[in-house]
Amino acid sequence: MEAAAVRDLAAVKQEAQELFDAYVECLDDDRIEQWPDFFADHAVYKVVARENVERNLPIATMSCTSKGMIQDRVVAIRKASVFSPRYLRHIVSSLRLLGEESGVYLLQANFAVFQTMQDEETKVFMVGKYRAKMVLSDSGPKFQELLAIYDSSQIPGLLAIPI
Amino acid sequence: MEAAAVRDLAAVKQEAQELFDAYVECLDDDRIEQWPDFFADHAVYKVVARENVERNLPIATMSCTSKGMIQDRVVAIRKASVFSPRYLRHIVSSLRLLGEESGVYLLQANFAVFQTMQDEETKVFMVGKYRAKMVLSDSGPKFQELLAIYDSSQIPGLLAIPI
Amino acid sequence: MEAAAVRDLAAVKQEAQELFDAYVECLDDDRIEQWPDFFADHAVYKVVARENVERNLPIATMSCTSKGMIQDRVVAIRKASVFSPRYLRHIVSSLRLLGEESGVYLLQANFAVFQTMQDEETKVFMVGKYRAKMVLSDSGPKFQELLAIYDSSQIPGLLAIPI
Repeated sequence: MEAAAVRDLAAVKQEAQELFDAYVECLDDDRIEQWPDFFADHAVYKVVARENVERNLPIATMSCTSKGMIQDRVVAIRKASVFSPRYLRHIVSSLRLLGEESGVYLLQANFAVFQTMQDEETKVFMVGKYRAKMVLSDSGPKFQELLAIYDSSQIPGLLAIPI
Repeated sequence: MEAAAVRDLAAVKQEAQELFDAYVECLDDDRIEQWPDFFADHAVYKVVARENVERNLPIATMSCTSKGMIQDRVVAIRKASVFSPRYLRHIVSSLRLLGEESGVYLLQANFAVFQTMQDEETKVFMVGKYRAKMVLSDSGPKFQELLAIYDSSQIPGLLAIPI
Repeated sequence: MEAAAVRDLAAVKQEAQELFDAYVECLDDDRIEQWPDFFADHAVYKVVARENVERNLPIATMSCTSKGMIQDRVVAIRKASVFSPRYLRHIVSSLRLLGEESGVYLLQANFAVFQTMQDEETKVFMVGKYRAKMVLSDSGPKFQELLAIYDSSQIPGLLAIPI
């Protein structure tokens, strides 16, 4: 890395950890209206099957290629909330800072998401890996790109919500 | 925060992480006799359903409002151990330090607890969020208050043990 | 610890965290050929049932008592890959640095491993605790010993792969 671009990597990793921790808290608390705030002005969010990533297939389960689309998703979710009430709970581990280029930090982390439907047992909903590009903006760290790559070959129920 | 109250927050968070890591190790290792040592002299421990927290209902699945009650719980568990042998395993992630007031640190973290009964498959027992107030005493960091707020609407089996 | 042996423990713990994070990524990505690189020249790797550890029974589900045996295991896995394709996903938490002796660091961490078989739901495969001895070699941190101690009394399917 060039001298000007070098930051304290331990501090950057700490910011990345806090970004992910706040991000999953927002989703677990069902504060979906605040979800777009975790993204930069020009941002991409996708949920994709691991199998498709490994085969280089350009198929996404959910794809938002601009911040406007990310915001539209929130409106769609709130309008379409006909599904049963449920709780989500994210566990995130093994966050790694893989590199930096021109102030964009490449990150990854493993995730497990658990779902509790009313009067049902808590189940594993989805496991996989986040791959992210993070920028440090004036208003704090933001995702310029966030991919949620899931192992599951079956999505239990329609995936309407972000992960 | 006032100048006098300001500590190195990164160091405090590290202490909080170590407190939680030691706490869940104690429970996973079934060293329940040491469980009260994680609490301050005046302490509260509760296990509560998320649904009740969100509705502001004052119903707790387990409620200890003094250290004496926390210690009594240990005696009760050891006397009442008629249930099948089982292993618990805690996964804790996304620890956040949310604030500080008069030397009391407000913390939260997500948890997933897995249970293995003899000759059965390992199952998700409970997922949820810890909410804690931590103090830094002469004998190390302690919980002044620990709430285990679980998502599950059904508790598999009687909840006799702390989480 | 003696003065000469003292290192910055926070830095050592960070290196341990990164070792575990890279280790589980290697397994999750099915890059098993690189798995032996996480071990020192003289190393031990074992997968053992918690029940046997607690009873001091010297029975291991998988046991490699030299680096040669660790390398042989990779060859055996690739030759024997007749089992169904599956994805593994590791979640690791509560890493603790328990002590140091003569440059060998004693570590432990909890793990949960999830398995996704083709066209099946994602399941909890195994939960348990890693216990490790780590050395800091010229080529980075390595495991001198790694034990994966699992709670499960039943292993779903033949355990051919490392955890």
